[in-house]
Amino acid sequence: MPLLGLLPRRAWASLLSQLLRPPCASCTGAVRCQSQVAEAVLTSQLKAHQEKPNFIIKTPKGTRDLSPQHMVVREKILDLVISCFKRHGAKGMDTPAFELKETLTEKYGEDSGLMYDLKDQGGELLSLRYDLTVPFARYLAMNKVKKMKRYHVGKVWRRESPTIVQGRYREFCQCDFDIAGQFDPMIPDAECLKIMCEILSGLQLGDFLIKVNDRRIVDGMFAVCGVPESKFRAICSSIDKLDKMAWKDVRHEMVVKKGLAPEVADRIGDYVQCHGGVSLVEQMFQDPRLSQNKQALEGLGDLKLLFEYLTLFGIADKISFDLSLARGLDYYTGVIYEAVLLQTPTQAGEEPLNVGSVAAGGRYDGLVGMFDPKGHKVPCVGLSIGVERIFYIVEQRMKTKGEKVRTTETQVFVATPQKNFLQERLKLIAELWDSGIKAEMLYKNNPKLLTQLHYCESTGIPLVVIIGEQELKEGVIKIRSVASREEVAIKRENFVAEIQKRLSES
Amino acid sequence: MPLLGLLPRRAWASLLSQLLRPPCASCTGAVRCQSQVAEAVLTSQLKAHQEKPNFIIKTPKGTRDLSPQHMVVREKILDLVISCFKRHGAKGMDTPAFELKETLTEKYGEDSGLMYDLKDQGGELLSLRYDLTVPFARYLAMNKVKKMKRYHVGKVWRRESPTIVQGRYREFCQCDFDIAGQFDPMIPDAECLKIMCEILSGLQLGDFLIKVNDRRIVDGMFAVCGVPESKFRAICSSIDKLDKMAWKDVRHEMVVKKGLAPEVADRIGDYVQCHGGVSLVEQMFQDPRLSQNKQALEGLGDLKLLFEYLTLFGIADKISFDLSLARGLDYYTGVIYEAVLLQTPTQAGEEPLNVGSVAAGGRYDGLVGMFDPKGHKVPCVGLSIGVERIFYIVEQRMKTKGEKVRTTETQVFVATPQKNFLQERLKLIAELWDSGIKAEMLYKNNPKLLTQLHYCESTGIPLVVIIGEQELKEGVIKIRSVASREEVAIKRENFVAEIQKRLSES
Repeated sequence: MPLLGLLPRRAWASLLSQLLRPPCASCTGAVRCQSQVAEAVLTSQLKAHQEKPNFIIKTPKGTRDLSPQHMVVREKILDLVISCFKRHGAKGMDTPAFELKETLTEKYGEDSGLMYDLKDQGGELLSLRYDLTVPFARYLAMNKVKKMKRYHVGKVWRRESPTIVQGRYREFCQCDFDIAGQFDPMIPDAECLKIMCEILSGLQLGDFLIKVNDRRIVDGMFAVCGVPESKFRAICSSIDKLDKMAWKDVRHEMVVKKGLAPEVADRIGDYVQCHGGVSLVEQMFQDPRLSQNKQALEGLGDLKLLFEYLTLFGIADKISFDLSLARGLDYYTGVIYEAVLLQTPTQAGEEPLNVGSVAAGGRYDGLVGMFDPKGHKVPCVGLSIGVERIFYIVEQRMKTKGEKVRTTETQVFVATPQKNFLQERLKLIAELWDSGIKAEMLYKNNPKLLTQLHYCESTGIPLVVIIGEQELKEGVIKIRSVASREEVAIKRENFVAEIQKRLSES
Repeated sequence: MPLLGLLPRRAWASLLSQLLRPPCASCTGAVRCQSQVAEAVLTSQLKAHQEKPNFIIKTPKGTRDLSPQHMVVREKILDLVISCFKRHGAKGMDTPAFELKETLTEKYGEDSGLMYDLKDQGGELLSLRYDLTVPFARYLAMNKVKKMKRYHVGKVWRRESPTIVQGRYREFCQCDFDIAGQFDPMIPDAECLKIMCEILSGLQLGDFLIKVNDRRIVDGMFAVCGVPESKFRAICSSIDKLDKMAWKDVRHEMVVKKGLAPEVADRIGDYVQCHGGVSLVEQMFQDPRLSQNKQALEGLGDLKLLFEYLTLFGIADKISFDLSLARGLDYYTGVIYEAVLLQTPTQAGEEPLNVGSVAAGGRYDGLVGMFDPKGHKVPCVGLSIGVERIFYIVEQRMKTKGEKVRTTETQVFVATPQKNFLQERLKLIAELWDSGIKAEMLYKNNPKLLTQLHYCESTGIPLVVIIGEQELKEGVIKIRSVASREEVAIKRENFVAEIQKRLSES
């Protein structure tokens, strides 16, 4: 298979150039139909179908169809992500779309109410999976697997209020990479950050930064600031909003809604404004309060080691130790991280994008143990690529630039200038298919030549083979380049070889 | 992208040779863990976990996890199927996992009770999709698409009693190809049969046959035999069982359970034993009773034309006109077909496989109109590849032959013979990853050399790069071939290029 990761930037550039056709090529017929699909879907989601009162034709709330245009963009992006996961030795796996309800309960904190439950039709109580991490932990415990490096690409479902404009849906795709097993500290953790860097660089989304912190530092900070232990998770969830809310609003929430003493909130405020490189780690080691907390010291020790490995990987400049990073999910136990785009990729004429984080993850050493009858732990660290947001960014860019995308890969079109050549066309196209060449023809007995050539131009097919009376008489096939409109006659018996030669050269 | 379809048989053979490692290579460590996963899953599905009485760790009834072994086999098979669909100019698309319940009702006849409904959590009533055809028809109608050639690979869910031994689950993958639009007769239909032939040949599952019939011939046959029109669908569903049940049992069902007059049943019996090539089509044109039925004549006319096109495609010998083929689903309106393997692929030591049909489909000209407010029709014809059965056959073969499969694609392992070389290993592996090379190392500060080499052998990694005291002193990296155990020293600055050279040669 092609090494998509080989020189990621250049590979991606070449992918994009394959993917994108010049905006001047007009896009008609079936292709035009498709390019309107996304809008049609939205429209039909917004307004009920009035002609048939008893039955609205739509997709369920918060979901959508993926048109061929969407699929092409997705396929290219997922190929790049998966080839990076494979480059790091990960195995693929999959789990069912639904799990026993009890497998998922008490894993997601406040968000459990957002789960889709299945109707009780006489059997087990089931829920659609909410992420890929809990099913992975269940898999490890169930099969007593103590060590595994795996990736998993799949849909998950959450009953959130859909904010479709930012690319958030109730059904969405996740791309996870995780390393399970007991290893020497920070080596797998550093690899997770390396993977995030490789993917975000490879996708050419612009400059990015990965914020890093450690759950133990967060908890230690809470402890030394005087947060009661019972409030740790609630305050953690407030802190997690700092990327979307100003400090004064977060402070207000903590004090007024969550009953934190104002002076405790202010002490936290001093910490969460700190971010920097490895020197901030050193500085925190000297911090008079934090250095008194055993947990925080453990976290700081690991971060120091992590930065050492990140330097060896050549990515330390992409990483920022950020005390405001908290991560909402309950199950994290150690290092946590989140990648953000440094500049919204706004170019002339583009609307500003607010896409939030594009990748995130962390260490969760306790989750597998929750599924093990004897509580045996399997330490895990992993990451999730926010592919839906990435799809959205790439699609928006293409839309702004008016870039069209080929939704088929057809290489050769079989045409005729005369009537009554269906049989010859069928014979020719079968030869092409049997030789592995991607070929199409019109499903008409007697199509017009102009209609056939127009189909090639509108769908981006580069080559046409033409069979007509003259060609039949002379025992040749005409090969036409759609771009240059040049035609050459090739002996019937050589035409497949000639086409293969041309395709391999292009 | 590689032309997987180029010379399908040879391509598949080469795929398989990549996929399968010699059975002599012992499979240990993480790999061994994984090879036991499938069994563990089944075991845990069969018996409840006794140690933790309140909580059974399992996947829902009729579902299973897909281990890395499963995934590798699936990926190769799906690649071949999808590349065939693309060779025929199909676009990809996807629809949500669930639909409005009313979208799915009254589409599947008796089977509607097997649908998974979602719990009413205050919103729309939803059901998991039951196939990919009805969502496709809904998509066409909703977006007013009149013409489209698409493929769709995705999971569907049916609450059937799972017979796991034959590879039937409640969650399974479907691979559909469909052509929607008004075209000249039988051209797209013939292409569907060509695609089925290409895929089944490419997969090398052994000899196969595609049974063909037409819903109008089935209905015409019922009419001229004297079946009351109200019983058409019920008798159709009995006839559909002829591939699993003897004629006398089917006759018994029709007469005793469904109240058909015995002489009517016997007349049907005369017809459904007929199968053959285009000559049987001619023969039926002359049939004194059938030739009196307008519908049947239309169907026979189309079949005659179909056979003409199949001959031009060079696949007529694979197709059998079979009057016993009825297809259970309500929505078929014209030609129908079903591919069966001619010999169960039993070889020495293999258990006989009963896998039923491996691909099927037909024409459904009325389904899209059911979703259109004004009933506008979009004629469709399509096929579904029974990939779950194909996965099962391939997995069983590999199991019988003791063939092991590589679940990772790692090309290079970074090893050291001495302690305190973690930093050097991290620098080396980052260089490999940044050059697009698939590389792994052990997550240990000081692993033993034997452990490292053993990991390569057990997981099938072909190359090892070694860095130790001597190499560091001499400014070289040692490259070792795992198979030949040969080692050469390469200058540090040239080692990536040397590895790329070796990988491109292998």
